[in-house]
Amino acid sequence: MSRIAYVNGRYAPQRDAAVNVEDRGYQFADGVYEVVYLRQGGFVDMDRHLGRLERSLDQVRIRMPMRRAALVAVLDEVARRNRVRDGLLYIQVTRGVARRDHAFPAQPPVPALVVTIRGVPPYPASVDGWSTEAITWPDERWARCDIKSTGLLPNVLARQAAREAGASEAILIRDGMVTEGAATSIWIVDGQGLVRTRHLDCGILPGCTRDALLAVMAGAGLAFEQRAFSEAELRAAPEVFLTSATSFVKAIVAVNGRPVGTGAPGPVTRQLFDLFARHVHGGRNATGRA
Amino acid sequence: MSRIAYVNGRYAPQRDAAVNVEDRGYQFADGVYEVVYLRQGGFVDMDRHLGRLERSLDQVRIRMPMRRAALVAVLDEVARRNRVRDGLLYIQVTRGVARRDHAFPAQPPVPALVVTIRGVPPYPASVDGWSTEAITWPDERWARCDIKSTGLLPNVLARQAAREAGASEAILIRDGMVTEGAATSIWIVDGQGLVRTRHLDCGILPGCTRDALLAVMAGAGLAFEQRAFSEAELRAAPEVFLTSATSFVKAIVAVNGRPVGTGAPGPVTRQLFDLFARHVHGGRNATGRA
Repeated sequence: MSRIAYVNGRYAPQRDAAVNVEDRGYQFADGVYEVVYLRQGGFVDMDRHLGRLERSLDQVRIRMPMRRAALVAVLDEVARRNRVRDGLLYIQVTRGVARRDHAFPAQPPVPALVVTIRGVPPYPASVDGWSTEAITWPDERWARCDIKSTGLLPNVLARQAAREAGASEAILIRDGMVTEGAATSIWIVDGQGLVRTRHLDCGILPGCTRDALLAVMAGAGLAFEQRAFSEAELRAAPEVFLTSATSFVKAIVAVNGRPVGTGAPGPVTRQLFDLFARHVHGGRNATGRA
Repeated sequence: MSRIAYVNGRYAPQRDAAVNVEDRGYQFADGVYEVVYLRQGGFVDMDRHLGRLERSLDQVRIRMPMRRAALVAVLDEVARRNRVRDGLLYIQVTRGVARRDHAFPAQPPVPALVVTIRGVPPYPASVDGWSTEAITWPDERWARCDIKSTGLLPNVLARQAAREAGASEAILIRDGMVTEGAATSIWIVDGQGLVRTRHLDCGILPGCTRDALLAVMAGAGLAFEQRAFSEAELRAAPEVFLTSATSFVKAIVAVNGRPVGTGAPGPVTRQLFDLFARHVHGGRNATGRA
C-alpha cells in the first residue's frame, strides 16, 4: 500500500506529496517538527509534543497552522488512511512559501504543515532486546538546540559518523560535557547509583520522553538529578541509556567500542524501561485499554 | 510573466515547482546552495561559486548533481527562459529524497537540484546610493559556517532582528569578535587606514565576493589584512563595509544606530566599490564586451 501524506490541506500519495521550492523550510530550514509515537492507535505523550511544538513555533515566531484539536484530527486521519496503529507520526511546520529573503516575509505566509506516518514494530517486550552502541562526537550545533528546528545537518553528520563506527547514536560533547544525543536524550547512572541527565537550557532539546520519564520516576519515588556530566563521567558510568519518542528507554551498552558496565543493560536501566513501558501502555488508546 | 524554475531535470512555472516532502533538504537542511549574480547576461565570479559549491558538497558528502558544464548550461537556460539579463541565480543541491532517517541513506539517492532566478536592478552607479545600516547580533550558528548549508534559521532570526531595528544586516559577534554578516562578509578600515576582514576557518563562509575583492586589491597593490577584529574595533573603525554576491561592495554607514565615521561612505570604501565595479564589468558577458 502506498503511504498517504497530509500536505497543506490535502491527503496525497507520499510519492506525490510535495512542497514548493520556495517553501522557507526548504531554503532556510525555517521550520520546526515533532515525532510522535502511536501505539495501538493511541498517541503517546501527545500533550507534551503539542506543547513543545507550540513552544518551538513561538520561539521562531511562526503561528500554529491550526488549533490543537484540528491538528490531532489530521494526525488521526493520517494514521487511519495509512491503516497504521503502531507507528511514528512526523509533523513539520514551516513559515510557508515566500520569495527568497532571509528576514520574515512582510506579509506572513500561511504556515506549511506536513504530516506523514510510518509503521514500526510492536513495543519491545524487554530491555534485553533493546540496546545499542554509541560514539562520542563534537557538538557542532547552533546555540538554540532547545528549538526543535529542521536545521539538522550537524545531527545528520553525527549520526552518519556513528553508523560508520558500527554504532547507532552519537553522544554530543561540548566543552568536555555531554549535552545530548544527535536525536535522543542521554542519561547515566553514576557511581552512587543516582540517575542523571543534563539540565534544560538552550543547549539541549527539552525531550518529551525525557520529561515523561522524569515524571514517572518522581511518581515512583526514584531519585534523579538534572545536572550536566562530563565525558569522563560518561566513561566511568556503570549504566548509560538514551530516551526519545522513537527509542523509549534504550540501553547503551558500549561507547566508542568500550563496554558500558558489564556490556549488558544494567539493573537501573531495566527498572526504568519497565516503568516507562507501563507509562506508554497507559496512554490514550483506541482499544479502550487504560 | 510567471517565473520558470529548474527542478530535478524539468523546467516548470515556479508556482508549480515542487520537491517531495521527504527531500532531505526539507526534513534535515541536508543540502547546500549558491547565489550567483548575472550581469548583462554574464555570470560574475562563476568559477569561484562553482568551486565553493563543489567544496560544500564534498564536506557533506553529496555528489555534484551534474558536471560543471552541464550545470552552467542549466543556469543559462533558466536565465534565458526567464528573459533575465540582470539577476540573481539561486542554486540549491540536496542529498535527495529518502525515507526519513538522520544518517545518510544506505543507497545514495539522486541529489536534488533546484535553480531559480529573479531580476534585480542594474548595477549601482556609485557607492553614494549604495549604503546600508547594520546591527550587531550574537553569532548563534553552528561550528561549520564554512559550509554554505541551507540550515539558515539563525541567519533568518539575525536578519529579522536587523530589519526590526531599521537596518538591513546583522554583524555577528562570537566571543567578542566579529565573524561575518548574516549573509555577507564584513570589513573594516582600521585607524591606520588598513583594510581588514576576518581570516578564513570553520567560523565563516569563504565569501566568493570577499575572495574576488582580495584578488582585485592585490592586483591594485592595496594592502589588506585577513585577521579577526573585535566588536570594539568595529565600533572604532572610520569605515565599515560588507561584500556579497548580491551586495557587491556596500558601505555600512551606521551600526546599532550610531554613524560609522562621518555617516557617509568613506574614501577607502569608495575606492573599493569602484575597483570591484570594474571587476564585475570584466566578467563573462553575453554581449561580448570584455
